[in-house]
Amino acid sequence: MRILGIDPGFAIMGYGVIDYFKNKIEVLEYGVIKTQAKTPFDLRLLQNYRGINEVIEKYKPEHVAMEQLFFNTNQKTAINVCQARGVAVLAVAENRLEFFEYTPLQVKQALCGYGRADKNQIQQMVKVLANLKDIPKPDDAADALAVAICHANSYREERKTENKCMSI
Amino acid sequence: MRILGIDPGFAIMGYGVIDYFKNKIEVLEYGVIKTQAKTPFDLRLLQNYRGINEVIEKYKPEHVAMEQLFFNTNQKTAINVCQARGVAVLAVAENRLEFFEYTPLQVKQALCGYGRADKNQIQQMVKVLANLKDIPKPDDAADALAVAICHANSYREERKTENKCMSI
Repeated sequence: MRILGIDPGFAIMGYGVIDYFKNKIEVLEYGVIKTQAKTPFDLRLLQNYRGINEVIEKYKPEHVAMEQLFFNTNQKTAINVCQARGVAVLAVAENRLEFFEYTPLQVKQALCGYGRADKNQIQQMVKVLANLKDIPKPDDAADALAVAICHANSYREERKTENKCMSI
Repeated sequence: MRILGIDPGFAIMGYGVIDYFKNKIEVLEYGVIKTQAKTPFDLRLLQNYRGINEVIEKYKPEHVAMEQLFFNTNQKTAINVCQARGVAVLAVAENRLEFFEYTPLQVKQALCGYGRADKNQIQQMVKVLANLKDIPKPDDAADALAVAICHANSYREERKTENKCMSI
């Protein structure tokens, strides 16, 4: 199963593509889509959208995983991140991919086993679980891989439960 | 000049199309794009996006005006509205239309002359300025017309100033 994880952002949007097969995770690519502050607002959203579409076209993922958003203290940033998330989700819907959302708590629990893990612990676990030599950089790409891995684990658990029910 | 005003929303997105020529406003159409709560989140965004694209395709506006968003008390609603606004702005950028944003205060001032006008006063002014028999319904469509009219007025004022500068 091929999973695209997205860490929504307006100035920097992270993405990570993994293959998940026989309980193994293989990282195909990760990176960020950057937009410049001097570019008009509507064109930055267009760049976010086209960037995600390029990744989808290149890797043809089956599932897309994204964190749910919660407001932070900077209202303007949060509003722009939400709008950028909107165009990323639109790309998912247009390509008829299956879309999954996770809370930050679910991502932490899936990767580290408990919900109070800090950013560094999450990134260490991404490195370990994805068999990478180093922690992926920048943070936005690591966060995108984290939610993709979270989905791989959650989806496996869900299927295990389904199988159990079926075997009764 | 043809102006599309959009009142961004996730469950209900308002739109209003006006022609503004020789200081006169003519309303061509107004209405709302509705999405159902039972529809998956990503497909609702796709419906928002396609709805706005249909209006753009039908009326071919030159300018698009939208209110800037501010957080309200319901975090979940606000996040969804922001994401829906993102896909509407994307449609504007993809169609290479000129995009203009106004604060709620600017809309009130442009329509009623002062920033503390209430919802009913704004709607009454929309009815008067757009030469409509009744207040447009639902509220989302009236709000969309309000921002379109705000843009017509603001753009005229701006051009007046430009002309003044040029004649010096």
